[in-house]
Amino acid sequence: MNTYKAPLADIRFALYDVLDSEALFARLGFADASRELVDAILDESARFTETVIAPLNRVGDEHGCTLDKATGRVTTPPGFREAYQQFAENGWAGLVSPTEYGGQGLPHTAGVPVKEMIDAANLAWGNFPLLSHGATEALLHHGEDWQKEAFLKPIIEGRWTGTMCLTEPHCGSDLGLLKTRAVPNGDGTYSITGTKIFITAGDHDFTDNIIHLVLARLPDAPAGSKGISMFIVPKVKVNADGSLGEPNAVQCGALEHKMGIHASATCVMNFDGAVGTLIGQPHKGLMAMFTMMNTARLAVGLQGLGLSDRAYQNALRYARDRLQMRALSGAKFPDKAADPIIVHPDVRRMLLTQKALIEGGRLLGYHAASLIDVAIHDPDAEARKRADDLIGFLTPIVKACLTEWSIECTYHAQQCFGGHGYIQEWGMEQLARDARITTLYEGTTGIQALDLMGRKIMQQQGAGLRVFLGMIGEFCTTHADDASLAEFIGPLREIAQEWQALTMQIGQRAMGDADELGAAAWDYLFYSGYAALAYWWARAVAAADASSHPQSLKNAKRETARFYFTRLLPRTRTHAAAIASGAAPLMALDADAFD
Amino acid sequence: MNTYKAPLADIRFALYDVLDSEALFARLGFADASRELVDAILDESARFTETVIAPLNRVGDEHGCTLDKATGRVTTPPGFREAYQQFAENGWAGLVSPTEYGGQGLPHTAGVPVKEMIDAANLAWGNFPLLSHGATEALLHHGEDWQKEAFLKPIIEGRWTGTMCLTEPHCGSDLGLLKTRAVPNGDGTYSITGTKIFITAGDHDFTDNIIHLVLARLPDAPAGSKGISMFIVPKVKVNADGSLGEPNAVQCGALEHKMGIHASATCVMNFDGAVGTLIGQPHKGLMAMFTMMNTARLAVGLQGLGLSDRAYQNALRYARDRLQMRALSGAKFPDKAADPIIVHPDVRRMLLTQKALIEGGRLLGYHAASLIDVAIHDPDAEARKRADDLIGFLTPIVKACLTEWSIECTYHAQQCFGGHGYIQEWGMEQLARDARITTLYEGTTGIQALDLMGRKIMQQQGAGLRVFLGMIGEFCTTHADDASLAEFIGPLREIAQEWQALTMQIGQRAMGDADELGAAAWDYLFYSGYAALAYWWARAVAAADASSHPQSLKNAKRETARFYFTRLLPRTRTHAAAIASGAAPLMALDADAFD
Repeated sequence: MNTYKAPLADIRFALYDVLDSEALFARLGFADASRELVDAILDESARFTETVIAPLNRVGDEHGCTLDKATGRVTTPPGFREAYQQFAENGWAGLVSPTEYGGQGLPHTAGVPVKEMIDAANLAWGNFPLLSHGATEALLHHGEDWQKEAFLKPIIEGRWTGTMCLTEPHCGSDLGLLKTRAVPNGDGTYSITGTKIFITAGDHDFTDNIIHLVLARLPDAPAGSKGISMFIVPKVKVNADGSLGEPNAVQCGALEHKMGIHASATCVMNFDGAVGTLIGQPHKGLMAMFTMMNTARLAVGLQGLGLSDRAYQNALRYARDRLQMRALSGAKFPDKAADPIIVHPDVRRMLLTQKALIEGGRLLGYHAASLIDVAIHDPDAEARKRADDLIGFLTPIVKACLTEWSIECTYHAQQCFGGHGYIQEWGMEQLARDARITTLYEGTTGIQALDLMGRKIMQQQGAGLRVFLGMIGEFCTTHADDASLAEFIGPLREIAQEWQALTMQIGQRAMGDADELGAAAWDYLFYSGYAALAYWWARAVAAADASSHPQSLKNAKRETARFYFTRLLPRTRTHAAAIASGAAPLMALDADAFD
Repeated sequence: MNTYKAPLADIRFALYDVLDSEALFARLGFADASRELVDAILDESARFTETVIAPLNRVGDEHGCTLDKATGRVTTPPGFREAYQQFAENGWAGLVSPTEYGGQGLPHTAGVPVKEMIDAANLAWGNFPLLSHGATEALLHHGEDWQKEAFLKPIIEGRWTGTMCLTEPHCGSDLGLLKTRAVPNGDGTYSITGTKIFITAGDHDFTDNIIHLVLARLPDAPAGSKGISMFIVPKVKVNADGSLGEPNAVQCGALEHKMGIHASATCVMNFDGAVGTLIGQPHKGLMAMFTMMNTARLAVGLQGLGLSDRAYQNALRYARDRLQMRALSGAKFPDKAADPIIVHPDVRRMLLTQKALIEGGRLLGYHAASLIDVAIHDPDAEARKRADDLIGFLTPIVKACLTEWSIECTYHAQQCFGGHGYIQEWGMEQLARDARITTLYEGTTGIQALDLMGRKIMQQQGAGLRVFLGMIGEFCTTHADDASLAEFIGPLREIAQEWQALTMQIGQRAMGDADELGAAAWDYLFYSGYAALAYWWARAVAAADASSHPQSLKNAKRETARFYFTRLLPRTRTHAAAIASGAAPLMALDADAFD
């Protein structure tokens, strides 16, 4: 009933027409990443996600994962393991990983649509390869050569998967509180002891081994977040020749029962003197973790995008099929018993909101992913620096906005179905339940807002914002005389000016009172998201007009942009007013007086 | 883990301090409804909901209802039936029903807090008595004397329950399409044949009989909504002496599997020549249905309020207990491992949003309920007319806003828990799933918006709005010289003026194009909701200041009102901008071009 069709046309529009990925890949030296190759990857990814993993989405929700308490072994729902084997055999696991470790070495910009399709097709399934990706990043950037050889290669080849073991019962956002201990064994290894919770893919039946990246404290560690180190702890010990040895003392103790993503194994992991090795410097584990986390945050943003798109597709089909009432302006289909509900303005409002947030959000997310390639491969050091600043700035925006918009999009999509949206059979409610995790894990929306405001704006003095405002300025200047874009350029200039002014205001207020940062953060993040989307929608119209696509596509981009500018961008009015009101309305009430 | 404590202090503040229910009841002739009696009812209701039905909330979610397909009998979760028996024996079923039919004859204003407590404690359980209430209204207003005697009394006594059988697979919002047939048997009865879906409490094990109020078409019925009649169809036929006779030909064919309210039996009901009698005039069934539906819509608004409050209570407790990070402005509890998260501005933002929407929404909802009493009992005919206009105007606002705010409040509450909010054990995700039905049933939010815009504003020429604007004007005039209220009175006057101006603008535009109504409806509804809440928050501050309550309560009301005016009321900026943009951005895109 609930289906998925990869939005290949819009994905190609984003890559080729707006982001100009062909020229980008040439500049960055990805000689092999021709348009033909990328197209073939997109086609094959569409086939795999539509026909192999999308049909398992409901099965996964109904079955969930099961745990054998005696052995700590997790069994995934029927079909999940086989789908992963296809995925691994076809080389998807290492799509964007370096060729020297067995990856395919493709740009992240080409990997990101594949990620979107996987998440749209089956979010819970997609969490297993996703977590490997975080481990890959940490091993790539912080692992010693032997660690890369022993652990990274099998992960990239898809033979093993990875996890990120951060959270403990008493510490989620505040990792400084963590208690898991690592005691040196004298042979260069450590004994890890402690309990980690919310460990996605902590155990499963996809692969023979799982590589846990675990935050823990050394005996001499300072208190707080500066005393945390990262360790590699394999589920099964690995012999010197790479073969599997004895089981390690780490086991899944329980599976969480969750609102959604039932097929994603959310494990309590018990480390009972498990043997691990240090990765990176002692007490510098948080830095290694941030490497994993930035990638993971962008990835979770894409999960939001994928879910939104799947929900929208199904809502759109329903809105075209469902006959109910006549258009207020007179029957549009007088030969039918009633008009399809897509004639009603309020149904169009819900659909266009989704369309504008999804297609705009796709540009926002893909662009951020493309910056990873620029930051690594651009021949110009200045360009690499700019990209790096911009990634840092955009990561919390992409993570928070694309996930919060997925809450909104799945909400509207469900609403389009009326009461049927509440019935499991239609599959819309699962999308809403699955989406609900995305604003919680990898840092809640509030944590993203603090990261943006505190770290990316204040500590880094708005370096990333300046780069983005520069992009806007350049675009507006280039198209200053383009009458057909004037309706977008004017408001975009205004919003960019206000964005800058608001940033300054907050900065000044924060010098007097640090709570001003926290009080502005959430509204500032969404203000930024809507401002960024205004830029991308203006770019989309310009790119469509400049393309050889049929007039219908040009019209659709223009009308959706108009909807965005008139109906969604005004949300910045509310956010700006909230920011202007400062911290006092939030801080005045005594904690005892909230009842 | 997830608990409920009836918010008696704020309920009393709403009733006694703001709505001045003592004077109201005296004027309306409710001699028995003394403050002592009302207080006793509130206390007993708190006890019953906190200790009897709240503990069944999770049980209900886990067990759900089950259907014996062979007999069509539905079994409710463990404890549900016994709780209903207590409820019925204690006379709660007829609390606000007329004494002449066995009710307690209390004002609706006194019944509405009881309703809120039931919904907060256990929404799914509350649906069983709720549906009886709709049937009661229809029977009271449209039933013949013998029908009242035969069916109304047992319902009011809680011995039987009622249903509303409207929806069919192909028609939900558009009842004009319905196909269920009623054929006269020649003896004054009719044979009803057809399938109804989404019938709440269509079958259960609480009582021996269930009275279905069914919409169907007579053989000579005109097409569309003007050819619909309403019939009374008992599950078990009733003998002339009131005793139960043979089973009727109506049976539950299936239970829907839903996102939430698992313990609420959502039935497919098959009528297979079931014997019924006409209620009201032939072909005038929609009018009788609207009688049920207005009550039901207010009631669903209160469901939203109750769920929001329960979610908030639990989020608040968690925010006080959970230690995580330090306040940006320096440690507030240096002796603890970290500060409780309630020190963080963004957590306060989420909590205060809930508090402002709940306490303001309580006034909005209770006031609407009090108008039912005024419309029936006020000695002044003019006052009755004004109240009637105002109920019509406020009903879609209360229904849509309190339910959409429950989506928002349960969202924020879940978010306060971080990842734990996604875990079933904490109970927060159930509240979010349960809340999700409230914006769908009894008319989606879009349907409420159309009712407000099309019927209550255009058809009735804004009669209800004029009354409400009159209340605002009177309040502002009364307090014009009150310096301590100036910070609220000024913005309230402005918003009232804009509200009126926007209404006129939409009306003028709609004369040229009816789609302008549909395009403005949703934003107009929420604009109205936030404007109305500004009035109630200003009234709350004035009432608190005028009361003998401790200064702490006066401060809490004032600070929450400040939060409302600076942080939530600015949402009207976005809605006003969307309204100003008109229908074009919604209607321009061709239905084929949404992909």
